[in-house]
Amino acid sequence: MITIQQLSDKLLRAEYAVRGPIVIRAQELEAQGRKIIYCNIGNPQALKQPPLTFMRQILSLVEYPELLTKAQELYPKDVVERARDILTKNPSGTGAYTQSAGIPFIRKAVADFIANRDGIPANPANVILTDGASKGAQAVLTALLRSPKDGFMIPIPQYPLYSASLTLYGGEQIGYYLDEENGWQLNETILTQSLNQAKSKGINPVGLVVINPGNPTGAVLSQENIAMIIKFARQHKLALIADEVYQENVYATDREFHSFAKVMHALGDTDTPLFSLHSVSKGFLGECGHRGGYLEMRNIPENVLAEFIKLQSISLCANVPGQLVTYLMVAPPKPGDASHELYVRERDSILRDLKEKATLLGQGIQQVPGMFVDIPQGAMYAFVRFELPHKPGVDPTQMSADQREKYEAERDNAYCLALLEETGICVVPGSGFGQRAGTLHFRTTFLPPRDEMEDLVKHLGGFHVRYVEKLRSSAS
Amino acid sequence: MITIQQLSDKLLRAEYAVRGPIVIRAQELEAQGRKIIYCNIGNPQALKQPPLTFMRQILSLVEYPELLTKAQELYPKDVVERARDILTKNPSGTGAYTQSAGIPFIRKAVADFIANRDGIPANPANVILTDGASKGAQAVLTALLRSPKDGFMIPIPQYPLYSASLTLYGGEQIGYYLDEENGWQLNETILTQSLNQAKSKGINPVGLVVINPGNPTGAVLSQENIAMIIKFARQHKLALIADEVYQENVYATDREFHSFAKVMHALGDTDTPLFSLHSVSKGFLGECGHRGGYLEMRNIPENVLAEFIKLQSISLCANVPGQLVTYLMVAPPKPGDASHELYVRERDSILRDLKEKATLLGQGIQQVPGMFVDIPQGAMYAFVRFELPHKPGVDPTQMSADQREKYEAERDNAYCLALLEETGICVVPGSGFGQRAGTLHFRTTFLPPRDEMEDLVKHLGGFHVRYVEKLRSSAS
Repeated sequence: MITIQQLSDKLLRAEYAVRGPIVIRAQELEAQGRKIIYCNIGNPQALKQPPLTFMRQILSLVEYPELLTKAQELYPKDVVERARDILTKNPSGTGAYTQSAGIPFIRKAVADFIANRDGIPANPANVILTDGASKGAQAVLTALLRSPKDGFMIPIPQYPLYSASLTLYGGEQIGYYLDEENGWQLNETILTQSLNQAKSKGINPVGLVVINPGNPTGAVLSQENIAMIIKFARQHKLALIADEVYQENVYATDREFHSFAKVMHALGDTDTPLFSLHSVSKGFLGECGHRGGYLEMRNIPENVLAEFIKLQSISLCANVPGQLVTYLMVAPPKPGDASHELYVRERDSILRDLKEKATLLGQGIQQVPGMFVDIPQGAMYAFVRFELPHKPGVDPTQMSADQREKYEAERDNAYCLALLEETGICVVPGSGFGQRAGTLHFRTTFLPPRDEMEDLVKHLGGFHVRYVEKLRSSAS
Repeated sequence: MITIQQLSDKLLRAEYAVRGPIVIRAQELEAQGRKIIYCNIGNPQALKQPPLTFMRQILSLVEYPELLTKAQELYPKDVVERARDILTKNPSGTGAYTQSAGIPFIRKAVADFIANRDGIPANPANVILTDGASKGAQAVLTALLRSPKDGFMIPIPQYPLYSASLTLYGGEQIGYYLDEENGWQLNETILTQSLNQAKSKGINPVGLVVINPGNPTGAVLSQENIAMIIKFARQHKLALIADEVYQENVYATDREFHSFAKVMHALGDTDTPLFSLHSVSKGFLGECGHRGGYLEMRNIPENVLAEFIKLQSISLCANVPGQLVTYLMVAPPKPGDASHELYVRERDSILRDLKEKATLLGQGIQQVPGMFVDIPQGAMYAFVRFELPHKPGVDPTQMSADQREKYEAERDNAYCLALLEETGICVVPGSGFGQRAGTLHFRTTFLPPRDEMEDLVKHLGGFHVRYVEKLRSSAS
């Protein structure tokens, strides 16, 4: 029989905390009848966020076109027209493999969306439709990693897709800290230090990953910060991966989303390769199950583009319902369309609800002694810092970096596990995302329904105080 | 700007002929208004094979559950019940990420399907739902390749997913010839030679890929042949990948599909790791656009299984509509269900049509002097051998193996390109799948509508005769 020793080391070393041991324990408890509040993953519809009616109406028609004749009266006029138009342009509907890069008219719609969003030119030939943004990110890593000494700069904390995929594909992680004191923006000094340190270890940096709005931080980067990042990438000849899947999720009134493409255009940078990712899973759609998204590339010559399309062709193409949801995301109903009013109402209700829950969570946690968080400006997460007392005689500052990382990971894991066992709240330990030595965090979403969010805020504080008390008393 | 030299060598070297230059040329010609008969890819619904009504009715209801109340009367009773049941067991429908391995009740349905098909036990815990079979195959290669000297035995000719993925992941291809004289079965002597030759080059064989029914060969392996393969794998400690996506596509009346799982069970082999792949894209469903499928594992300990699930978790989960189509494939309407009669009628019509077209193609080609093929027993392809005269003074037997391979690839590519330009028929050169030195082939599907198949057979012969004539006259 095969043994675990026969598996790839790279696979064995890859870690993906968002679905790690704490989540597995939560599923066990749930199977035993415990009520679990899942705050581990950005999966809105699993937590009762409703889908947008417009998307689902069109999918039902394209999946089963007989409804177009038998039940036309059940659908708004623009929905019927849109479904007919999809089936005219792509007669096989959802049933056939598409071109490797995706259905041509959808790639064009994505380019139009970017052009309208940013007021810049966009080329459909540079758009590839993907099974969610994850597959787009993995394509870029696959294409750009030439040797095991090549590395990508990734934020700390970061969404573990990047660390896991780098481990899996055999590239180096070059972590750079986000500036927690400064609203989790990027900091040029820190970037430079991290780059130089990597080079001094013989690592060849080839790319820089930025997540904006941030996961797990919930931060929205300023235009100036993005301009700094682009200049930094240009100076150091790094390809940029801009993970912009939360672009619709901006709640802070003094913040807005700026795309890397737009800022790069304004800077007149026609040199730095840019790979932007978007997804149907986030925003106000939350269509995670459909696995749709796109990768848009800039400053990429045609022969490089052709290699990306070849890579896509090896797995044939992205799933077609996901391609269609991507289309409907970038080409929603227009004012005057029969669906428009309902669409706007549903969209605004979801975004308003998310904004209120972000505030509820942030303000609630700020009341708890020993817990620290800003009200999330965007995305679906808060990265909450918390403080725990050490046992007498334990001084982490005397530990080696590895020992300390291990010690702190044990502490945040134990904390999150105890939180789960005691309250049913499932969050992800900060060590799964990376955190500055000497700090402890967890990531929580603010996706559960409002009443559960209120419970969560209430129970978090009580738990934290008791947990700290217990550590103190066991220490004395 | 990024250059192609900055991309991974492994990506640059990967080749995927099924969507290669000839297909790109066909798309250009089509854009210019030429009628193209696409025989390059197993994509039935692109060639007007209708989807099964049952699948699409249920998808429409799950995508847009309001139809359950508003339009129930449009659907057969069992369809409505099935859709309600899906939404009860998986309340988020198609909208949420599922567990990494897929929706639990669907994994159970897959295990039940295997148990019923083969009369053997099957465990839902060993089933992972995937975005098509390709992703299942790639997961196995990713997990089992520990070093660049590890290799998988793959058939020649083979479906280029395997060669492309091995190149991409940095593993060795250990080609073994299928026995064309013997209906493309596997031959133990050839397998042993190929294994020994690989070992003598320092390659470490870790797995053996078998495609049954065969792609591109259209052959169906006998039970004895499968037993031989399993014993060979066991003896040499190879993991088996059984690509069984064409299991429903058996047309020869003297052949039937035997699964590797069933034969392995009969042999009492509880040691050899087996990874079986299935897909919704082939069979009589042809639901390529939905990217659904599964990977079933046998003789795999729990900790190895956990690593496969972790791998799946890094990309979150397979798309949910694809998971649902997989469910409906393994759990079709039962006799007595309102949908059963239509389902059976549609299924039988598609399979009958495929069988007739296989015969039409095989018999037609057998009439052409210099072209050779058996009537395909299964799958969706014929791998047609053809003979071309050499230029005077050219003696391929005097060439090195590499020179010869290049020479023959140029010849079959030129042939297929001329076929496309002259007749609009798009097939894939044999060199894209691998072929024995001294032979030339192309792969064609028999998926186009019947009238197009008749044209194809007619035009193939005329083209071949003219092409040979032209080569002869330019030589003299």
